[in-house]
Amino acid sequence: MIKITLPDGNVREFAEAVNGYEIAKSISNQLAKAVLSISVDGAVWDLSRKIESDAAIKLHTWTDREGQDTFWHSSAHLMAEAIEVYYPGTKFGIGPTVDTGFYYDIDLPEGKILSEKDLQKIEQKMLELARQKNEITRSVISKADAIAMFAEKNDELKQELISELEDGTITLYNQGNFTDLCRGPHLPNTSYIKAIKLTAIAGAYWRGDEKNKMLTRVYGVTFPKAKMLDEYLVMIEEAKKRDHRKIGKEMQLFGFSEAVGQGLPLWLPKGAQLREQLENFLKKVQKKYGYEQVMTPHIGDVKLYKTSGHYEKYGKDSFQPITTPSEGEEYLLKPMNCPHHCEIYKMWPHSYKDLPVRMAEFGTVYRYEQSGELHGLTRVRSFTQDDAHIFCRPDQLKDEFKKVIDIIFIIFKALSFDNYTAQISLRDPNKPEKYIGSPENWDKAEQAIIEACDEKGLNTITELGEAAFYGPKLDFMIKDALGRSWQLGTIQVDYNLPDRFDLEYIGSDDKRHRPIMIHRAPFGSMERFVAVLIEHTAGKFPLWLTPEQAVVLPISEKYNDYAKKVSDFLNISDIRTVVDERNEKIGRKIRDNELKRVPYLLIVGEKEAEAGSVSVRRQGEGDRGSMTMDEFADFINKEVREQLSGLYN
Amino acid sequence: MIKITLPDGNVREFAEAVNGYEIAKSISNQLAKAVLSISVDGAVWDLSRKIESDAAIKLHTWTDREGQDTFWHSSAHLMAEAIEVYYPGTKFGIGPTVDTGFYYDIDLPEGKILSEKDLQKIEQKMLELARQKNEITRSVISKADAIAMFAEKNDELKQELISELEDGTITLYNQGNFTDLCRGPHLPNTSYIKAIKLTAIAGAYWRGDEKNKMLTRVYGVTFPKAKMLDEYLVMIEEAKKRDHRKIGKEMQLFGFSEAVGQGLPLWLPKGAQLREQLENFLKKVQKKYGYEQVMTPHIGDVKLYKTSGHYEKYGKDSFQPITTPSEGEEYLLKPMNCPHHCEIYKMWPHSYKDLPVRMAEFGTVYRYEQSGELHGLTRVRSFTQDDAHIFCRPDQLKDEFKKVIDIIFIIFKALSFDNYTAQISLRDPNKPEKYIGSPENWDKAEQAIIEACDEKGLNTITELGEAAFYGPKLDFMIKDALGRSWQLGTIQVDYNLPDRFDLEYIGSDDKRHRPIMIHRAPFGSMERFVAVLIEHTAGKFPLWLTPEQAVVLPISEKYNDYAKKVSDFLNISDIRTVVDERNEKIGRKIRDNELKRVPYLLIVGEKEAEAGSVSVRRQGEGDRGSMTMDEFADFINKEVREQLSGLYN
Repeated sequence: MIKITLPDGNVREFAEAVNGYEIAKSISNQLAKAVLSISVDGAVWDLSRKIESDAAIKLHTWTDREGQDTFWHSSAHLMAEAIEVYYPGTKFGIGPTVDTGFYYDIDLPEGKILSEKDLQKIEQKMLELARQKNEITRSVISKADAIAMFAEKNDELKQELISELEDGTITLYNQGNFTDLCRGPHLPNTSYIKAIKLTAIAGAYWRGDEKNKMLTRVYGVTFPKAKMLDEYLVMIEEAKKRDHRKIGKEMQLFGFSEAVGQGLPLWLPKGAQLREQLENFLKKVQKKYGYEQVMTPHIGDVKLYKTSGHYEKYGKDSFQPITTPSEGEEYLLKPMNCPHHCEIYKMWPHSYKDLPVRMAEFGTVYRYEQSGELHGLTRVRSFTQDDAHIFCRPDQLKDEFKKVIDIIFIIFKALSFDNYTAQISLRDPNKPEKYIGSPENWDKAEQAIIEACDEKGLNTITELGEAAFYGPKLDFMIKDALGRSWQLGTIQVDYNLPDRFDLEYIGSDDKRHRPIMIHRAPFGSMERFVAVLIEHTAGKFPLWLTPEQAVVLPISEKYNDYAKKVSDFLNISDIRTVVDERNEKIGRKIRDNELKRVPYLLIVGEKEAEAGSVSVRRQGEGDRGSMTMDEFADFINKEVREQLSGLYN
Repeated sequence: MIKITLPDGNVREFAEAVNGYEIAKSISNQLAKAVLSISVDGAVWDLSRKIESDAAIKLHTWTDREGQDTFWHSSAHLMAEAIEVYYPGTKFGIGPTVDTGFYYDIDLPEGKILSEKDLQKIEQKMLELARQKNEITRSVISKADAIAMFAEKNDELKQELISELEDGTITLYNQGNFTDLCRGPHLPNTSYIKAIKLTAIAGAYWRGDEKNKMLTRVYGVTFPKAKMLDEYLVMIEEAKKRDHRKIGKEMQLFGFSEAVGQGLPLWLPKGAQLREQLENFLKKVQKKYGYEQVMTPHIGDVKLYKTSGHYEKYGKDSFQPITTPSEGEEYLLKPMNCPHHCEIYKMWPHSYKDLPVRMAEFGTVYRYEQSGELHGLTRVRSFTQDDAHIFCRPDQLKDEFKKVIDIIFIIFKALSFDNYTAQISLRDPNKPEKYIGSPENWDKAEQAIIEACDEKGLNTITELGEAAFYGPKLDFMIKDALGRSWQLGTIQVDYNLPDRFDLEYIGSDDKRHRPIMIHRAPFGSMERFVAVLIEHTAGKFPLWLTPEQAVVLPISEKYNDYAKKVSDFLNISDIRTVVDERNEKIGRKIRDNELKRVPYLLIVGEKEAEAGSVSVRRQGEGDRGSMTMDEFADFINKEVREQLSGLYN
């Protein structure tokens, strides 16, 4: 008798050894069709592998990461099989899954190069092989046999990989005429794979080391339904259009300069204005919630980071210390603002009545990333956190958490992020030794977070063991307009830094106590947030936020003076307006300003100059008719008011 | 016949060799009484030294630096004479003048230490010796004789100094029984010195090297009139009270932390708010004048500073380069923003119609200073410049200069700096090889500055040879409430960086041209400016600027709710208001908030709560009677409006 415990705690009994597919089938036919792999006591297995003793299991479908991993892993093998058909003698390196899809690093026979056309040929072969519904089977092999097998194929890449494995743990997977070294798990057969797209070819050094041979990396993505591939391709096309690097250039928001250094963004006038709008918005909200702004330097003595523990943990992989010409001092570019804020907290004594202290800073920090990892504004070496640290008593924790959630909601609403989820990360109750701080405090803090989320009506998922060693946390993930997930705001409880910096307050009992520290950054960083916002809105920022709200387009130079008059009037009415005075045809002016995503284009010529009016055109939408200057000012101010109504003040 | 040319170009003829005193006397008796030393063909001489051939001269009195230097130099000798009377065997190191007064580094006989009381004794002896009207005489001595003389006195300090001098250039000065090695010049006799104050004793290593012996440094200051000393002491007392470090602490504006690092200011909430007010004010003004804000990182590739020339010039004395864990990159903390702004300028092509480009940034820069040089906010290692760079055509230079002068005037007016002077620094017309850029461009630029100042009605002094090698400039000096001078804004023309960064614009002739760059920072740096502002206003900032404009003081906890209501009402009316809810007596609350320089103290108790009013007290001035909340809001908003009226918008 085998007892199988399901994730919800229910137990199913089977007379004899049973596999994942059979368990799914025992639940429903629909599930049996959807299931791709199975977790058995935490390890992901092939569906066809028999479970010989009692176990806790979880069935994986396309909707979870493990299911997709299995699917794409088998797809990589399928691609390798197809490549071997056309290019016998190809040697195969590694073929892992990535965020979306998979790749395989291959060493093609001497003189062979893959073209776009070759990829299509391989795709066709893959589809043909998939339709054959070839069974994918697992077998265990001894190390000696495995090496002998790949030696016969002259595949020294696989031989090298095998040489590093422990005998007894080596498995092969076979489908049709193709056998590969693989840990698994895999799909039961190739027919699950219905839609295939090989997306890119790149060069990659064997094992990422530039001293090794350059291999060919082939990327692909597959789906269980043809429709899903179509949707994916549309999404990719749209994502390319929305690439924040592309739009950032078109709108002149930010740029990079090789001479200044890679990964160090330069905020151009319009981008700087956008950022300032965002910062001012958050400042206003935070002021309402009792935050105080501070400003601290961008470097700190190395000793400061030894105290905080950051140096020990990250020192080697960071920008290296800055020495002084004399006096033997050592400074670090600050990788975070918290140590500086702890030092401010310590500048004068605090009573329990003074707490919470909410200290905010738009603090620019510096973290080294390898140049290959850099990407637009999402992966940079300098970024500005919308940072704040709340120093509070244990009994204030829940309330403070609720207030931070409020602030995050205000931001999501102001920027139309309607689709978000939240994850509560708690400690692993079985490994108390991993965490600092008393169990009582942890209990209280975890309870406070759970209750705060509950009272705010937040839908959350809870993950045990995902807490940092110094405290539990709450993360927000948003889905953008293309359905892609981005992690934004984090609220992190911290028992560690108050200890390391010996922070105190005098309690109502006249004794010394440790405050709790909350780290929080609703935007995360201004750089990453602006990137997400650009891709979410395709550069069409909410009217209240966008750097230029209106542009006046005189139809000829004759009307430049009137255009200037309109612009002056609107600017005085707090509408950010510019004039396109260039000596260009009106059609060209409209096209250029549409590309810059200026929300309102105001065309003025003889008729408008005489009537004191403007011809209003909404970006991407077209004509809105004629309005007087006053009417337009009211119209746009009303739109802004509605966007922000009730969010602060 | 000796021809003496006066500074105004007039020539006086004398039958035989003549000295400074005689020249002064030939002009007026009053001048003869006031004159202290004389410049002869650029070198400063004793008044009694005979001029043997034709020369250009300038007579120095107490009102010029050379006159004061002579006066204080003789005072140092007088102090040394008095010390030798009481402490025979004392060895004398160096005795130079300082900003105000002089010091002498001395090596007292074994076991002797100076106390406050000893200083008074020495002062008395100095006065006694001064009254003796001892003549101060100069004599030339051979090196061998000079060494022999000080060897006899066992003064190895002087022997060491003499050993480094060239034979034939060594002079002694004698007064009464005291003779000192000295280059001079000196007063004719000791009776000029009427008022004496020895101000401090400190330790100082011989020649500033900590491997040498520690000497005693005695500071003093002297004046030609007793009244001047009295005024000086009052000023010093007042300056102590206004010390920005003291007030900064009392008002919790900024602080330093050993753990973060010396010279790295932490802006506390109220200071950060003050700074933000100043920045927002300048941003508004700059927006009106067509500036665009940008934001750039705080580091740059070393190559950037090699291009700009900064690395070669300052690299060794700066914070040292930051290396990366891999990839062998090298970055520098940015010592200035201009190279970053040049890189932004280069991001797209410019036509002559696009100029001027006015690029502004509140950019925090880092410059290494030795720890002994650090002083509050006036000498720091990190500071934020209110920086901007104007890229313009040669024909726009004058107009741009005038606009920058306008901005500086607006700032001076908003902050009540009524007493200022300006200096135009031009090239040395005799040394054209010292300057880069064509003589025609220099002519044009110098002319543009002179005309701009003229058209703006600015009183200026012009200094030849004070221009930087890369362009002429205009500096503003303000006098604060204590009459002390501070250098603030600078406007600097630059032909160098546009060359080094190969900046271009396409002219109306369709050819490539170099723009001219103007560097300008009206505040200079936020840190230094706030320090000056604190000392100028004694922390009583203009109402529009001060971080907290009003504080509500409930006379007991019973009225905390009403106090909160008042504060909410005022904050909504844009008046920055806080409540002092502490459980303290009202007298204590008033005293504490007076010390924090909150301009308006609003006392509320039963009467006020019933009437919906506040009892208004002006900081440092006392009672202003009772007002309703509305009346007070109108009252304070009117005051702010009046302060800023006409300055922008």
